[in-house]
Amino acid sequence: MISFTCDYNEGAHPLILERLASTNMIQQPGYGEDSFCENAKEKIRQTIGRPQADVFFLVGGTQTNSTVIDAMLRGYEGVVAAQTGHIAVHESGAVEFSGHKVLTLPQHQGKICPDELESYLKAFHDDPTWPHMVWPGMVYISFPTEYGTIYSKEELTKIHSICKSHKIPLFIDGARLGYGLMSPACDITIKEFAGLCDAFYFGGTKVGALCGEAVVFPEGNAPGHFFTTVKQHGALLAKGRLLGIQFDVLFTDELYFRISRNAIDKAMQIKAMFTEKGVPMFIDSPTNQQFPILTGEQMAALEGKVLFEVWEPLPDGRYVTRFATSWCTTQEQINDLYRLLQESH
Amino acid sequence: MISFTCDYNEGAHPLILERLASTNMIQQPGYGEDSFCENAKEKIRQTIGRPQADVFFLVGGTQTNSTVIDAMLRGYEGVVAAQTGHIAVHESGAVEFSGHKVLTLPQHQGKICPDELESYLKAFHDDPTWPHMVWPGMVYISFPTEYGTIYSKEELTKIHSICKSHKIPLFIDGARLGYGLMSPACDITIKEFAGLCDAFYFGGTKVGALCGEAVVFPEGNAPGHFFTTVKQHGALLAKGRLLGIQFDVLFTDELYFRISRNAIDKAMQIKAMFTEKGVPMFIDSPTNQQFPILTGEQMAALEGKVLFEVWEPLPDGRYVTRFATSWCTTQEQINDLYRLLQESH
Amino acid sequence: MISFTCDYNEGAHPLILERLASTNMIQQPGYGEDSFCENAKEKIRQTIGRPQADVFFLVGGTQTNSTVIDAMLRGYEGVVAAQTGHIAVHESGAVEFSGHKVLTLPQHQGKICPDELESYLKAFHDDPTWPHMVWPGMVYISFPTEYGTIYSKEELTKIHSICKSHKIPLFIDGARLGYGLMSPACDITIKEFAGLCDAFYFGGTKVGALCGEAVVFPEGNAPGHFFTTVKQHGALLAKGRLLGIQFDVLFTDELYFRISRNAIDKAMQIKAMFTEKGVPMFIDSPTNQQFPILTGEQMAALEGKVLFEVWEPLPDGRYVTRFATSWCTTQEQINDLYRLLQESH
Amino acid sequence: MISFTCDYNEGAHPLILERLASTNMIQQPGYGEDSFCENAKEKIRQTIGRPQADVFFLVGGTQTNSTVIDAMLRGYEGVVAAQTGHIAVHESGAVEFSGHKVLTLPQHQGKICPDELESYLKAFHDDPTWPHMVWPGMVYISFPTEYGTIYSKEELTKIHSICKSHKIPLFIDGARLGYGLMSPACDITIKEFAGLCDAFYFGGTKVGALCGEAVVFPEGNAPGHFFTTVKQHGALLAKGRLLGIQFDVLFTDELYFRISRNAIDKAMQIKAMFTEKGVPMFIDSPTNQQFPILTGEQMAALEGKVLFEVWEPLPDGRYVTRFATSWCTTQEQINDLYRLLQESH
Repeated sequence: MISFTCDYNEGAHPLILERLASTNMIQQPGYGEDSFCENAKEKIRQTIGRPQADVFFLVGGTQTNSTVIDAMLRGYEGVVAAQTGHIAVHESGAVEFSGHKVLTLPQHQGKICPDELESYLKAFHDDPTWPHMVWPGMVYISFPTEYGTIYSKEELTKIHSICKSHKIPLFIDGARLGYGLMSPACDITIKEFAGLCDAFYFGGTKVGALCGEAVVFPEGNAPGHFFTTVKQHGALLAKGRLLGIQFDVLFTDELYFRISRNAIDKAMQIKAMFTEKGVPMFIDSPTNQQFPILTGEQMAALEGKVLFEVWEPLPDGRYVTRFATSWCTTQEQINDLYRLLQESH
Repeated sequence: MISFTCDYNEGAHPLILERLASTNMIQQPGYGEDSFCENAKEKIRQTIGRPQADVFFLVGGTQTNSTVIDAMLRGYEGVVAAQTGHIAVHESGAVEFSGHKVLTLPQHQGKICPDELESYLKAFHDDPTWPHMVWPGMVYISFPTEYGTIYSKEELTKIHSICKSHKIPLFIDGARLGYGLMSPACDITIKEFAGLCDAFYFGGTKVGALCGEAVVFPEGNAPGHFFTTVKQHGALLAKGRLLGIQFDVLFTDELYFRISRNAIDKAMQIKAMFTEKGVPMFIDSPTNQQFPILTGEQMAALEGKVLFEVWEPLPDGRYVTRFATSWCTTQEQINDLYRLLQESH
Repeated sequence: MISFTCDYNEGAHPLILERLASTNMIQQPGYGEDSFCENAKEKIRQTIGRPQADVFFLVGGTQTNSTVIDAMLRGYEGVVAAQTGHIAVHESGAVEFSGHKVLTLPQHQGKICPDELESYLKAFHDDPTWPHMVWPGMVYISFPTEYGTIYSKEELTKIHSICKSHKIPLFIDGARLGYGLMSPACDITIKEFAGLCDAFYFGGTKVGALCGEAVVFPEGNAPGHFFTTVKQHGALLAKGRLLGIQFDVLFTDELYFRISRNAIDKAMQIKAMFTEKGVPMFIDSPTNQQFPILTGEQMAALEGKVLFEVWEPLPDGRYVTRFATSWCTTQEQINDLYRLLQESH
Repeated sequence: MISFTCDYNEGAHPLILERLASTNMIQQPGYGEDSFCENAKEKIRQTIGRPQADVFFLVGGTQTNSTVIDAMLRGYEGVVAAQTGHIAVHESGAVEFSGHKVLTLPQHQGKICPDELESYLKAFHDDPTWPHMVWPGMVYISFPTEYGTIYSKEELTKIHSICKSHKIPLFIDGARLGYGLMSPACDITIKEFAGLCDAFYFGGTKVGALCGEAVVFPEGNAPGHFFTTVKQHGALLAKGRLLGIQFDVLFTDELYFRISRNAIDKAMQIKAMFTEKGVPMFIDSPTNQQFPILTGEQMAALEGKVLFEVWEPLPDGRYVTRFATSWCTTQEQINDLYRLLQESH
C-alpha cells in the first residue's frame, strides 16, 4: 500500500547513507566540531551567498523552534505567529515550556497578513496597559506554511520591514524550505530569502535526511552562547557528524533543491489528477502538500489501497484530506494513485 | 593519529548502517509508531525480562535526563545526584531549565554513598524548615559513573531500598550502561538491574549507535502523557525509525553487550600497559574509561601521536588524563598505543 | 478630582487599619501560621459552609492565578480560558512563565460559552494529533469577568459538569468576587458557588483590603505541597498576619459582602445616570464596572473633572470607557459625577 | 511569653500605621505610579547619594531575589552564591523555577571568600568543557549573611572588583540591610555600599514594615522592561501605595537606620548576657542574630518562657540556637530574658 501521509515516511537519500558508510570509522571530535560539519556549514554559507553567516545543526523541528526562539527572546518577550503556526498548535507547548507566550495573529491559508501584523504591533504599543502584557519580541512564520502555501517576495519584504521598524527579529521555520523554494509559485531565490529574515532553517528531516535542521543566522548574528543554549535545551547531538555528513551531502551539487523539486513535480501531478476528477482542493497549495476535499464515499473507495491524512471534517460532511509528496516520491507511486482514482470515481 | 578522547568518535556499528540501508525505502509512520521501534521495544523487554516494561526512544543523553526527570517530578521537587553527576555539571543547566533543582551529595569516585543518601533524606525531613526547601523527589545516579566506576549489587539494592522507603523513584543514567554491565567488576545482571530502579536507559550514542537512548520504565510505570512531555522537550524524533532500527540491531543477538565487552577488553589492556610502565591510575576504573596520571613530560611525549583528554591538573603538577575505549576500538589501535608508550617512556 | 478609574485607588477599609493597629505588637509566628490567619480561615470555611476547605492567603491576583494554575497542572497541561481572560491578556505571561500554555476560547461579553467549551474539549480528544498538542488540564473563568459580567448558576453548573466529565478542575478567579455575588443579577449563593468549582479565591485587593487574595480549595483538595509551591512562586508573605488580620476583619459580620454591595449600589446609579442622558452602555454590566460609550466631545467635557479609563476606541470614533465603583465609593462622589454630567451634556 | 524567634514577629512601626491611616482615602493610581512611591524613591536616591538610581518596590524577599536574578541573567546563565545563601537553601527553588542554576561556593560564617570566587571563575573559564556548563552570570551575596555576619569594605571592594573584571553584576540581598549597616562592626556607609554593587535592596519586611523590599539599581541600570518582569513574576502590587507609604516613612528622618540600631543594641546585650553566663557563641555575629550554643538542659530551662530557634544540633549533643532581635525589641524584653537566664543557669 502506498502512503502519502507525510514527507518523512522513508529513510534518507541514498547518497547520505553511502556517505555515512564511507566515513563511518573516521575518528572525529563530537558536538559539531568535526570536519563534516565544517564542510557543510561552508557549503550552506555559499548557498546563501553569505560567508559571514552562523550555521548550527540541530536534530528536529520542534526542538529547533523552541531553542532558537528562547535564545532570541528575553524573558518578558513572546513570539508572534499565525494561529495555525506549528509552534502555536503542534509542539505540545514547547515554546511555553521555555517561558514564552505565543502571540497569535489570524491566518490566511496558513499565512499572516503584513497589514494585520503592523496593526497588531501598533495596537500593542498604543495600548497604555502594555507593560502588563507580553512584549512581542519576534515574529515567526513558516515557509511553506502548515497549509502548503508560501509567502511572495513582496509579502516577505513587507513583514521583514515591519519587523525592522519595530526592532524585532523575523524567524522563518523552514522545516520544508526546499519544497517552498522549488515551488513554481515561488518568486524568491534562497539568497534573497536569507536577506529577508534574521534567522531561518533548512529542514532536513522532511527533505531527505534521517534527521537534522540547519539553523542559519545570515549576518553572523547568532545569539551569544547559542551552543550552551542548544545543550541546555537537550538539542546538542554528541555525534554531530551525523548532522554534518547529511547536510554536506544535501548541499553538494544542489541535492537539497533537486530532491525538493521532485516532490513539487509529483504534487502538481496529484493536484492535476484530483482536479481532473472534479475533486475540489481546500487550498490552492503550490508545494508538496495537497488538500483534496473528499466525500466519505470517495474516502472509502481509497481505503486499504492508499494512505493519506484526514485533515479536518467540513460542516457539509465532506473531509479535507492531505496528500503529501516528498523528496523520494516515485512516478510509479503517482501512477498507482492515478489508477486508483480512475477505478474508484 | 589515533584518538582515545571519547567513546563517540566514530559513526555506528556496521550492522546498523546496513540495516538503515536495507530498510531505507520502506514506508513507515513517524514519531516512533513504526514497526522497527515496536520490534526494538520487544527485544528490550525480553532482555530485561519484563514484558510489562514501557520503552521510549530519545535522541541524546542530556535530553533524556532532563525529559525523564521533568516528567517524573512535580513542580516543587528536585533531583538528588552526586556533585559530579552529569546533570549537576555538564548539561548546561538543562534540569534547572525545566524548573527543578539538582540537590547534590558528596561523590566517592563518582558514586553517592547509600548512608549519606539516607542521612540527607532524614536530615531534610527532620528540618522544620523543610517546607521552604526543595523536596527531594527522586534520586539520579549514573551507571557507570562519570569516573568509570560502578555500583555493586549491594549498593544498588541499598539505594533503591532507601528510595522506596522514602517513596521516591530511582533513575539511572545508562549513557554507558553496556560498559558497566560488561565490566569484570560488575556483579549484577541486566534483569536484576532493571528490578533495582524505577527508570533507566540503555545509552546508544556511546555504545555503537549514531544517536539514541532507550528509556525503560521497567514496571510499565511511565509517567502519564510521557509522549507529550517528550515532544514538549523537543525530544521526539519525527523519523523514529532511525532509533527503532538502531536499537533493533543492537538488541539482536546481544550485539549491545558484545560490543560493550570489546571496549572493556581494550580498556583493561590500556590499564595494564600504563601500570606496567609505572604510571599510577587516578581511579581504579573497571570500565571503558581509564584515568592515568601523567607528568607534563609524559604528555608531551605522546603529543601529536595519540589523542586523549586532560581531565584535571593535580596540585603536584601532574595531570589526570582520560583514555576512553569504545565498542569499536581495535586491537591495532591498542598495539599502536603500546608501541608509543614503549618509545616514549 | 474624583476618580472612577479602578477599584483599588484607595487604601483599606478603616476596620482593617484599626485592627492592624490594635494587634500590631502581638508577637506571632510568620508565614501564615499565626492565629489571625487561623481565625480568618475558619470564618471563610463557615462562610462557604465547608469545614473541610483548605484556605491559603496570597498577596495579589496575578500571583494567585499563576501559583494556583501551576500547582494544579502537570507539566504537559495547559489552562483553558476566555481570550479576554486576565491570565490570557494582562498578566505579562505569568502562566507561560511557569511553563503552561493558555488555551483560549471565544469570549461573549467576557464569558466562555459552555457549549463551546464542550466542543473544544471534544474536538481536542477527537483529534488524532492530540499527543502533539497541549492537554487542556483545567478551566479558568473569572467571576465577575473582565467585562463586569457574571455567569448564571445554570452556566456555572454546566461548565463545572463539563469539567467533571473530562476530569479536569475548574478554577474561578474571584479578584472581584464580592462584586459578582452582590450583583442584583446574581442567582447564586456563595455556598452554592463553592460547590461548583474546584478552586477559587476571594479577592481582597479590589474589595477593601490593602492586598491579599484568599484561595479556597472547597473540598480540602489543595494540591500537595502547596505551601512550598507558594514559596517557590515568591508568593509567601513572611508577615502572614497582614493577610490574616485583613481577611479576619473582612469575614467578620459579613463586611466583605456589605462593602461589595456598596459598590454595586453606586454602579447602578452610574448606569442609570448615563442611561438618563442617553449614553449607551457597551455591555449591560450588572457589577461594579460600567462601560458607557462616549463621544470625544463628551469625554472632553469631563476632562480634568473626573478620572475614568478609556477602554477601547470604536470604529465610529466613539470610545468605550470604564467607570469603576468600589467598596468605598461615596454617595457624594456619585452626586458629583451626576452634577458633572448634567453640566456637560 | 517573649519571642526572639525572628525579626518579623510583630506588625509595623507605629509611624507606618499612622501614615497608612492618614492617607487612606486619598485616591491614587495603582501599580506603583502613586505619589507615595515617588516620594519614597526620591528619599532612597538621596539616602544613597545617587539621583540616577532606579528604585522599585517589591513585596517579599524570595520574590525579590528570584525576580531580580531572572531579570539580570540570560537564559544560559546561573548565579553564584554561598552554599548557605538564602537563594541556595530556603527559597523552595525559586531561582531554579525561573530556569537558572544556583552555582555554590563554600561559605565561611555565611560569607563567600573573594579569592575562592576568583579561583572559581578562573577555573570555569580555563575548563575547556565550559560551553557544556552553566555560565556564571552574576554573584549574589547577603548583607548581613544568613549567619548574621557582614562583609568588610575591603571584602566588598574585592568581590565587586572581581565581578567587574569578569563583566558580571554583583547583587546584594539586603533583607536585613539596616541591621548590617548599623552594626558596630560595619566599616562602610550606605553611599559607599551602593557604589560597590550593581543591584541591592533595602529589606523592609524584617526592618519595621508590614511587607516590602526596595530594590535599587544604583546607576540607573535597571534591566529593560523590569516592570513587566516584576508583573510576570507575580511581584507587582496593585496597591503600590502600601509599599510607597511604608518606605516613605522608613526613609524619613532616617527611621530605617534608627530602628535598625535598636536591634543591634539589644542583640549586643543578648550576646553579653550569654557570654557572662559562660555560654559560647557559634559565630561571633555583629548583627541582630545571635547564635548561643546551649545544652539540652539549658534549653529545657528556658522552655515555655522564651521562644527562640533551634538552628542545628551539634555532634556533641549541644544545639546551636538563634536569638533574633528586631526594630521593636524592647529593653523590657531584654531584661526579662536576662532574668530568665539568671534563674535558669
